[in-house]
Amino acid sequence: MNSETIRVTLNEDEMPKAWYNIAADFSKPMLPPVDASGKAVPPEALGAIFPMNLVEQEVSTERWIPIPDEVRHILYRWRPTPLRRAVGLERALGTPAKIYFKDESVSPAGSHKTNTAIPQAYYNKIAGTKRMTTETGAGQWGTALALGCKMMGIDLRVYMVKISFTQKPLRQLIMRTWGAECLSSPTTLTKAGRDVLARWPDTEGSLGIAISEAIEDAVSSPNTKYGLGSVLNHVLLHQTIIGLEAKEQFKKIGLYPDVIIGCAGGGSNFAGISFPFIADKIAGSSNPRVVAVEPAACPKMTKGVFAYDAGDVAMMTPLLPMYTLGHEYQPAAIHAGGLRYHGMAPLVSHARHEGLLEAMALPQVECFAAAMTFANAEGLIPAPESSHAIAAAIREANAAKEEGKEKTILFNLSGHGLLDLSGYQSYMEGRLIDHYFDDADLKESLACIKDLPKPPPGY
Amino acid sequence: MNSETIRVTLNEDEMPKAWYNIAADFSKPMLPPVDASGKAVPPEALGAIFPMNLVEQEVSTERWIPIPDEVRHILYRWRPTPLRRAVGLERALGTPAKIYFKDESVSPAGSHKTNTAIPQAYYNKIAGTKRMTTETGAGQWGTALALGCKMMGIDLRVYMVKISFTQKPLRQLIMRTWGAECLSSPTTLTKAGRDVLARWPDTEGSLGIAISEAIEDAVSSPNTKYGLGSVLNHVLLHQTIIGLEAKEQFKKIGLYPDVIIGCAGGGSNFAGISFPFIADKIAGSSNPRVVAVEPAACPKMTKGVFAYDAGDVAMMTPLLPMYTLGHEYQPAAIHAGGLRYHGMAPLVSHARHEGLLEAMALPQVECFAAAMTFANAEGLIPAPESSHAIAAAIREANAAKEEGKEKTILFNLSGHGLLDLSGYQSYMEGRLIDHYFDDADLKESLACIKDLPKPPPGY
Repeated sequence: MNSETIRVTLNEDEMPKAWYNIAADFSKPMLPPVDASGKAVPPEALGAIFPMNLVEQEVSTERWIPIPDEVRHILYRWRPTPLRRAVGLERALGTPAKIYFKDESVSPAGSHKTNTAIPQAYYNKIAGTKRMTTETGAGQWGTALALGCKMMGIDLRVYMVKISFTQKPLRQLIMRTWGAECLSSPTTLTKAGRDVLARWPDTEGSLGIAISEAIEDAVSSPNTKYGLGSVLNHVLLHQTIIGLEAKEQFKKIGLYPDVIIGCAGGGSNFAGISFPFIADKIAGSSNPRVVAVEPAACPKMTKGVFAYDAGDVAMMTPLLPMYTLGHEYQPAAIHAGGLRYHGMAPLVSHARHEGLLEAMALPQVECFAAAMTFANAEGLIPAPESSHAIAAAIREANAAKEEGKEKTILFNLSGHGLLDLSGYQSYMEGRLIDHYFDDADLKESLACIKDLPKPPPGY
Repeated sequence: MNSETIRVTLNEDEMPKAWYNIAADFSKPMLPPVDASGKAVPPEALGAIFPMNLVEQEVSTERWIPIPDEVRHILYRWRPTPLRRAVGLERALGTPAKIYFKDESVSPAGSHKTNTAIPQAYYNKIAGTKRMTTETGAGQWGTALALGCKMMGIDLRVYMVKISFTQKPLRQLIMRTWGAECLSSPTTLTKAGRDVLARWPDTEGSLGIAISEAIEDAVSSPNTKYGLGSVLNHVLLHQTIIGLEAKEQFKKIGLYPDVIIGCAGGGSNFAGISFPFIADKIAGSSNPRVVAVEPAACPKMTKGVFAYDAGDVAMMTPLLPMYTLGHEYQPAAIHAGGLRYHGMAPLVSHARHEGLLEAMALPQVECFAAAMTFANAEGLIPAPESSHAIAAAIREANAAKEEGKEKTILFNLSGHGLLDLSGYQSYMEGRLIDHYFDDADLKESLACIKDLPKPPPGY
């Protein structure tokens, strides 16, 4: 294999045996989760929501955490995923840059989300959990956890954000095929859902609302735990398998990326592709640029603030240190449902705070145009979320062309868009419009966090 | 890699460099296509429909036909496809058998059809074709040729069987994303379509009708050729890459399959997986069982006759020697749209005639039950067509269990079912019913061929 190889593959014995925990390598320690009074939340308190084996991962500062055999044997069914050179896209753009993407769409659920769904369901099984609840935005996470729970013999209820529930009936069918129950959120089954419906009767739903419902259900039901598809440390940990494989694959072809790009909703696919490369940055062995791409409709890192905020609308989670637009923010109904989240994972927020990555925000029409270019050049229809990474990669490739520079670009193709085609239809029919977060709304958007504890001064 | 390997992969330099042409190895030569008077149709006559470079492949008796570099470089994007051991399914069945499947669902169009779509579009491009027409049943072929034509810069119009057009709006969107035009067949744009609508106003459409429309369009439009997704020799030739890879993969793990199973609509995915193994049978180096699985609603090999018949309703194709239920037969609207074809590929028919394979017919409820078992055990939702191969593989695995025999079973997973979930919905809601071809209807079904030329006596 060399740089002319179209699809760089690895055998199953070359799949990483451990996940990489970036918390071990930060120069400053992470701020702890706190409660409303500002007091650090002890790990045991998280045991109401998650099994303790996952809580241990959540607070761990060990650099490497072994991937259990049973998890690896299931991941082998589609991992290691290919690292693909986008030769068609390079040609279409006429760029001297080499464009590579990690193809997470090959998972049976269609995205990177299975990387954490399988271990989460596994650790829950080990801990004796009989039933799980979760939320889903675009449907990728709900689908993935349905698969994970089916593999591990756990019942699952999914609260699916209303706008996606309506737009994506096939997603529900996949979850049902894998034995999960799927409801349109907000529901009237939870107090959180009823409260939201009373305040905003016409809401399209949001991840923040769905999370509240799923947590309330979990803490009030027997033998039930909650699973989150992004944001938390243990979720990002599981996703580092993406970047670890990519590093191994680049080694095989004698290259190293100059820039690494991922779309950023809650932060997990971005962390997955980038953290193992950021490790090299911290170690000083290399210095790639690392770029997180947010939707212009929900730009927490580029427009929000670094603060303590809740992970959900009803404030059922501990307060986490993160870039946020405020937990009551309900983003416009863009097609990239997986990016409609008010906050950014604490680990990614911390890395940004330490200057280890850049963030940019892109509007959805540019992203769908990029996705169409990619789909036609590469023959793979990306998820609307992934289109944000593609749009940024195309900007990089065009810049390389203007500068006449050979450059190696890596982005994460977090999932395929075969079940998200309504966005493409709107784009092709000229009906797609852009949504931007309005700077003037920031104060109102952050009002809900103004009385919460603050990060220590100087942090 | 060994027999414990979950996913047997090959690098791109291990992908076959040539397709295998079984016509070179038959003990008796194939019967030629003939016209209505029984006269052999010369290759040049096919030039009205196909470019001559594909016609040459159609009539070739060379054993190996090189795969052009440009075609291989596009196939590298997703090939070689994995050979996967279905450990979850084995466990669910408690069988001593080893079950392997070739995973053709990893193609960006979701099925094996890209294996011929890319070369067909390539050879058309080389020959100067500017526009192509085709038919599609379930939508897999139309999607695949849309991709092929996009890659080669050729315009495409797809006549999609009405029942699938209605059931699968996402399929149309994918074709449109890749730049193809997609129409519900029968249309009023062709004489063939208008004639059908006059005779059967409530028709759900069929592959035979859609083929007539696509051919009529091709022969009456400038610079336009027709592309067929199955049945013909050159199509089956391109699909042999599946079985050639599988043989290489079995070699890597030191195994050889005892039985090879494929679903059979027009015959191309079945031929693809099986012909390279049948070559070993003919050579006498091994003797696996080879099983073609038809839908009970359209059982041409198990209930039909070996005869000369047209490939389409309007009889625009030459007459081909094949197992058939008669070209006017319109199968029940089963969910496996890709298996709703009245005839079987001449190469497969000939192989059956020479005793090189078995055929069986299965009803769709058993097939969907098998698909659900597979989806839950393996985490991959198969196409309704592929479910027929899975159901037969499960029968084999259960037989192995009863006999207490270790046995190696190989089937072809021709595609995924992510865009065909309505069948799963019907199944889960208990609304799915079986359709059987009624023996009593055979005479009427074959009435349309009774005045056509017959194969020579003793053949």
